[in-house]
Amino acid sequence: MEGMVKCSANYVPLTPISFLERSAIVYRDRVSVAYGDIKYTWKETHERCVRLASALAHLGISPGDVVAALAPNIPAMYELHFGVPMAGAVLCTLNVRHDSSMVSVLLKHSEAKLSVVSRLPFPLPGILEYESLLEKGKLDFEVRRPKDEWDPISLNYTSGTTSSPKGVIYSHRGAYLNSFAAALLNDMSSMPVYLWCVPMFHCNGWCLTWAVAAQGGTNVCQRNVTTKDIFENIARHKVTHMSGAPTVLNMIINASASEKRPLPGKVAVMTGGAPPPSHVLFKMEELGFHVTHSYGLTETYGPGTVCSWNPEWAFLTPEGQAKIKARQGVQHLGLEELDIKDPATMKSVPADAKTMGEVMFRGNTVMNGYLKNLEATKDAFNGGWFRSGDLGVKHPDGYIELKDRSKDIIISGGENISSIEVESVLFSHPAVLEAAIVGRPDDFWGETPCAFVKLKDGCNANAEELIKFCRDHLPHYMTPRTVVFQELPKTSTGKVQKYVLKEKAKAMGSISKGNATSKL
Amino acid sequence: MEGMVKCSANYVPLTPISFLERSAIVYRDRVSVAYGDIKYTWKETHERCVRLASALAHLGISPGDVVAALAPNIPAMYELHFGVPMAGAVLCTLNVRHDSSMVSVLLKHSEAKLSVVSRLPFPLPGILEYESLLEKGKLDFEVRRPKDEWDPISLNYTSGTTSSPKGVIYSHRGAYLNSFAAALLNDMSSMPVYLWCVPMFHCNGWCLTWAVAAQGGTNVCQRNVTTKDIFENIARHKVTHMSGAPTVLNMIINASASEKRPLPGKVAVMTGGAPPPSHVLFKMEELGFHVTHSYGLTETYGPGTVCSWNPEWAFLTPEGQAKIKARQGVQHLGLEELDIKDPATMKSVPADAKTMGEVMFRGNTVMNGYLKNLEATKDAFNGGWFRSGDLGVKHPDGYIELKDRSKDIIISGGENISSIEVESVLFSHPAVLEAAIVGRPDDFWGETPCAFVKLKDGCNANAEELIKFCRDHLPHYMTPRTVVFQELPKTSTGKVQKYVLKEKAKAMGSISKGNATSKL
Repeated sequence: MEGMVKCSANYVPLTPISFLERSAIVYRDRVSVAYGDIKYTWKETHERCVRLASALAHLGISPGDVVAALAPNIPAMYELHFGVPMAGAVLCTLNVRHDSSMVSVLLKHSEAKLSVVSRLPFPLPGILEYESLLEKGKLDFEVRRPKDEWDPISLNYTSGTTSSPKGVIYSHRGAYLNSFAAALLNDMSSMPVYLWCVPMFHCNGWCLTWAVAAQGGTNVCQRNVTTKDIFENIARHKVTHMSGAPTVLNMIINASASEKRPLPGKVAVMTGGAPPPSHVLFKMEELGFHVTHSYGLTETYGPGTVCSWNPEWAFLTPEGQAKIKARQGVQHLGLEELDIKDPATMKSVPADAKTMGEVMFRGNTVMNGYLKNLEATKDAFNGGWFRSGDLGVKHPDGYIELKDRSKDIIISGGENISSIEVESVLFSHPAVLEAAIVGRPDDFWGETPCAFVKLKDGCNANAEELIKFCRDHLPHYMTPRTVVFQELPKTSTGKVQKYVLKEKAKAMGSISKGNATSKL
Repeated sequence: MEGMVKCSANYVPLTPISFLERSAIVYRDRVSVAYGDIKYTWKETHERCVRLASALAHLGISPGDVVAALAPNIPAMYELHFGVPMAGAVLCTLNVRHDSSMVSVLLKHSEAKLSVVSRLPFPLPGILEYESLLEKGKLDFEVRRPKDEWDPISLNYTSGTTSSPKGVIYSHRGAYLNSFAAALLNDMSSMPVYLWCVPMFHCNGWCLTWAVAAQGGTNVCQRNVTTKDIFENIARHKVTHMSGAPTVLNMIINASASEKRPLPGKVAVMTGGAPPPSHVLFKMEELGFHVTHSYGLTETYGPGTVCSWNPEWAFLTPEGQAKIKARQGVQHLGLEELDIKDPATMKSVPADAKTMGEVMFRGNTVMNGYLKNLEATKDAFNGGWFRSGDLGVKHPDGYIELKDRSKDIIISGGENISSIEVESVLFSHPAVLEAAIVGRPDDFWGETPCAFVKLKDGCNANAEELIKFCRDHLPHYMTPRTVVFQELPKTSTGKVQKYVLKEKAKAMGSISKGNATSKL
C-alpha cells in the first residue's frame, strides 16, 4: 500500500527495556524491589539499571558480550536483568548450586567477559564491589537498545535432569512477548506484589523479572526460600502472586504451625516443573492459595502452557478438580501452537487421552537456539516444531497431559510405564513426602519400576506396604518391584535428578536371574 | 551468536489471527458472540471466519485487496475482523453515518474490491447474502497469514472533527501488540464479558475486536446504542467491561428510571474521545460503573494513553479525584513513548502543568501511514514522532492533560484559550447537557469565545445566566461572549463536529466594531 513509512515513530524493536523505562514514569514512586529493610522505587530501579549499564560499558563490555551472574534472588540480580541488556550485552545466569568445576565449564563455554557473583569465599584480584560499580555509572548513559529485536538478551543453561547442559538463547522479542503472556497467564493486573521463590537464574525467573516491571509490581526478594520467610513476606508485603515448583508447595503445606501465618488475601500461585500431586493442591487451597499449573521448558522461556480453568469444573468433586489441575493444559497467549505428535511422522495423535506422542511447540516464545551447538538446534527444530522430548496425550477438550520425559519412560516386558503415573499414586500415600520412579535394568523384563521414596517426618511405612498400596491402585505391571528409602537428589529448581537415581538403580543389577519367570 | 536458527518453530509473524485460532481450542465451548437470541461459541466463530475467508478467496479476493464493511455492531461485523485478514485482505470499515456521497468517495479512494453492507435500501445486481456466502466457504481453507507482520490488516478513515478523511493503515503487528495492551489496560482477565457500545468501525473497536478474542471473552453485540439495550444487556449477560465516548456515559446517567437496572457486578468502563466531565464521572460511579479515562487517535489504534489510577488518590476529595480522572495520563504498555513537545524545536516542555506543547507519540501501535498520501504521512512523522495535533501540558508526575486540538484553541487578544477548560465549566452548570466552545472572529480581539449549548430536558437557563456562571469560575478573557442554544452536530462516535460550529460562528461576524475597546 502506498503512503506507508517505517520510522522511529511507528517501529521500535521489542525489548523488555521498554517496560522499565515506562514504569520509571508511570509507577515512579511505587516500590519496585523490597528485600529485608531495603526498598527501591521504580524511578530508583531505573536509575540504578542505567548506572549499571553505563558502568559495564565503561569496563569495556560491548554489544553482544556475555555477562555472567551467579546470585540468588537479591536486588542486584533483578537489576542485572535490565542493566546488562541496557549495555547491549547478554545476561548469562548460572545456577548457584553448581559446583565450581561446572561453573568453570559454563563460564568458558559462554565466553563470559565479566561475572557478577553474590559472595566470594576468598579474596581475588580485579574485584569490584557492586555498589561502588553503580556509583561509577552515569545517569546520562545512552541505553544500547537492540537494533534487531531477534538479538539475544540472555543465555540460560538447561539445568540438569540430564548431565549435559546446553546454552539456550533468548531474544529481546521473545522476552518481551513472553512477559505479556506471563502477566496475562498469571492474571497479574496493574501493580501486583510478587514473591520471588522461583530462582531468577531459572529461565530468567520464568520471565517474571520482566513481566513484573511491565505491570509496575513490587518484587519481594528473598536470599533463601524458607517457609518462615515465605509466610513472613506474604504477610508483611501483602503478596498477591508467587510461583514455585511442587517442592516449594510441599514445603509450604508441611510448614510447622509456628511458621504458618494467615494470608492477608488471595495469593495466586503458579506451579510448574512437575505436575503437582493432588493432595498438595488440596492442602494449598485449604491454606488460601489459589494454585494454577503450568508447564514448559528452558527452551520455551519457562511456562509455555497453562491449565486454564474452566468455570464449569467448579461442579466436579475435589478429586476430579485436582485431576484436571494436574494436566499441563493449553498454550499461553504468546505461544503459537502446541501439539502432541508422532515424532517420526509428525502427525498429530488423536485427542483420545490415550495415544501417546511427543509434546511439540511453535511460536515466538521458543528459543533462538543452543549456543555453539547448531546440530542440537537443528535436531530440536527438526520438522519446523520444537521437540520437547516429553511424552504426553491429548484430551478430547484439547488439553494435554504429560506422561513422561521420553528418556524417563520405563519399558517393562514391552509395556510403557509412565513414571509420573506411578509417582502420583505413591504421592497419595499418607506417609510419603517425595517419590521418584526409575527403571531398574532387568535381565528378563528389560526394566522394572524402582521407587525412591522419602517419608514424612514421624511417619513410617515399609517397602512391602508401599508396594501393596501401588498394587491396589495400579495395573500389576506398573507396580514398583523395589523401594529405596532416601533423600532425593535435586536440581536447584527442585526437580529430581533422575539420572542420579538411574545410575543407582543400574548398580543394583537385575532382580530376575537369567530365565526367571514373572511372579505377577 | 552461533547456534541460532530462525524457522517456523520459533518465529511467527504477529497477527490477531493467532488469537482466534487459540481461542477455538482453549475456549472452544464458551460463548464468543451474543446478539439478541443468537449465540456462537469460539469454535463456531472460528469456523465461520474460516468459511468467510474461503468464500472471499473464492470470489477472487487476493492478498492485499481491500474489503469494505458498512455495518453496525452485529456478529457479521465482528467476523469480518478475522475473516477478511484470514483471506489475506485488508478490512476497511466505514462509518455507518456517512452519507452516500462520502461512502462513494471512500470506496473509490480505498479501491475496495468488495463491500459487505448490513442493509441495502434498494435491490442491486451482484448481491450475495452473508449467510449464503458463508455456506459456500470451505472449512479446510488454508488461512492466508501475513508473510511480514508489518503488512496492513485494516484501513480506518479518520472520522471527522475535520472535513477531510484520511485512510489510516494498521498493521498485523500493531493490531496484535495493541490487543495485548488493550487487554491489560482494560484489566481484562480471562473470559471477560464485553458490551459493544464503541462502533467496531471506529479504530476496529479500539482494537477490542481482537483483544476480546485473545482473552476468550464474550462479545455482546447491539445494533443500536440505546440506554434500554445497554441496561438490559448488562443484566442479561453479566457484562464485566464496556467502553464508550462521554456522550454514551451521558446517555447512561440520564436514562429514565424505567430503563435503569441494578448492575449484576462491577462494570469497568473505558471512556475516551473527549475528557469526561466530572459530574458525569460522579454519576457513573454512583450507578456502580468504574470509569477509566483513555485518550488516543485513529492514528494510535484508538486509546494510546490511560489515566492509570494511583491508589493514594483514593484519599483525595471526590472533586480532586474527578479532576485527576479527566487527565489523559500515561502511555499504555504497547506504546513506547509519550511526550509534550514544542513542535518547532522538538524539545520536551517542562513538567510544570502549565507550559503547553503538542502531544506526540512513538511506538509499535502507531499507524503505518496514510493511504496514498505520503506527504501527510511524512508531515505526521516529521521529527521521528507522531504529531497528534493536540495541545496539552505535562504534570509533575508525568501525566499529560489535554488542553485543546491545536486547531480548536481560541486566541483572543493574544491569549490562548483552551476550549476544553471553558467547556468543563459549562458542563458543571446543572442545566447544561452538552456544550462546545469555538472562536468567533472578532475585529478587535481576533477571536472571542462563543458557546454552543444544549440544555437538559425540562431545564432552563438563558445566555446571561451562563455567561455570569462562567465569569464566576474563569478568568474574564476566557468567558464566552456569545451563547447559542441548539443541538450539537456530532460524528458517529459522539465527537462534536467543531468545524460546523466554527462555520456558524464565522457567519455571525464580529462583535467589536472596528476600534472597539474592551468591556472586560
